[in-house]
Amino acid sequence: MRVFGIDCGTEFTGYGVVEMDHGARSPKLTHCAAGTIRLNKKEKTPQRLAQVYAELTALMSLHSPDCVAIEEVFFSTNAKSALKLGQVRGVALLAAATCGLPVAEYAPLSVKSSVTGYGLAAKEQVQFMVTRLLELECAPDSADAADALAIAICHIHTAQTLVLQGANR
Amino acid sequence: MRVFGIDCGTEFTGYGVVEMDHGARSPKLTHCAAGTIRLNKKEKTPQRLAQVYAELTALMSLHSPDCVAIEEVFFSTNAKSALKLGQVRGVALLAAATCGLPVAEYAPLSVKSSVTGYGLAAKEQVQFMVTRLLELECAPDSADAADALAIAICHIHTAQTLVLQGANR
Repeated sequence: MRVFGIDCGTEFTGYGVVEMDHGARSPKLTHCAAGTIRLNKKEKTPQRLAQVYAELTALMSLHSPDCVAIEEVFFSTNAKSALKLGQVRGVALLAAATCGLPVAEYAPLSVKSSVTGYGLAAKEQVQFMVTRLLELECAPDSADAADALAIAICHIHTAQTLVLQGANR
Repeated sequence: MRVFGIDCGTEFTGYGVVEMDHGARSPKLTHCAAGTIRLNKKEKTPQRLAQVYAELTALMSLHSPDCVAIEEVFFSTNAKSALKLGQVRGVALLAAATCGLPVAEYAPLSVKSSVTGYGLAAKEQVQFMVTRLLELECAPDSADAADALAIAICHIHTAQTLVLQGANR
């Protein structure tokens, strides 16, 4: 299973592609790609959204994931920032739909808890654990890319748990 | 000048196309099209966003407007609904960018005041004035379509004022 994780932001949107080979003798997480889509603050919103959409659809076509995993949104932000974040998130969800990919959503608490074992872990802890779990030589290029990888890992862990629960029934 | 107005909503998104022939002896607003994109509540969010995007880009290609006018968002809503509305709004802005159209944004107060003369006018007053200004035989098919037409009219009025101000300098 190959998962495309997305961490939306109004300035930086992180993405991370993680694979898990369920058929292997010792299932192992593999890092396929990760990066950050950096938006030009000088551009107008429609052009910025077009950039996110174009890059995400190109990356999804390139990496051929089986599904997209995205963070549910944190509702403690105010309405103005929620609206701006929603605009980017809408475009990310549209990119998944355009590429015919199913979307799974996870709460930030579940994502952090899935990679660090602690739902309120700091950004640095998430970066550290993602680097370790994926056996990377150095940390991902940004906290957003690390978060996107964490979201993808969270989806793989959840899918594994569901398979195990099914097998135990 | 032909303007494509959009009134975004999480269930219903209204659109309205209005033209103003500045070259005519007596400039007059003309209604070109209006309608409502109704989203299926049973569909998942990415599919609903894909429907809004597909319909808006098709309508923009069909009506060849010179620009898109959209409402600035009302920030008194809570963060959760602002995020959901933002997702639809992001896709609408992306549709404009995809079609290469510039986007103008207007506050709800300016839109209402532009068509009714009163910024806190009720929905029915907006519908009534839009029907009258565009000399329609009956009111638009929904309050959302009427709002979208009002946004387009607001942009035409604003553009006219700017032209007049330029001429008086």
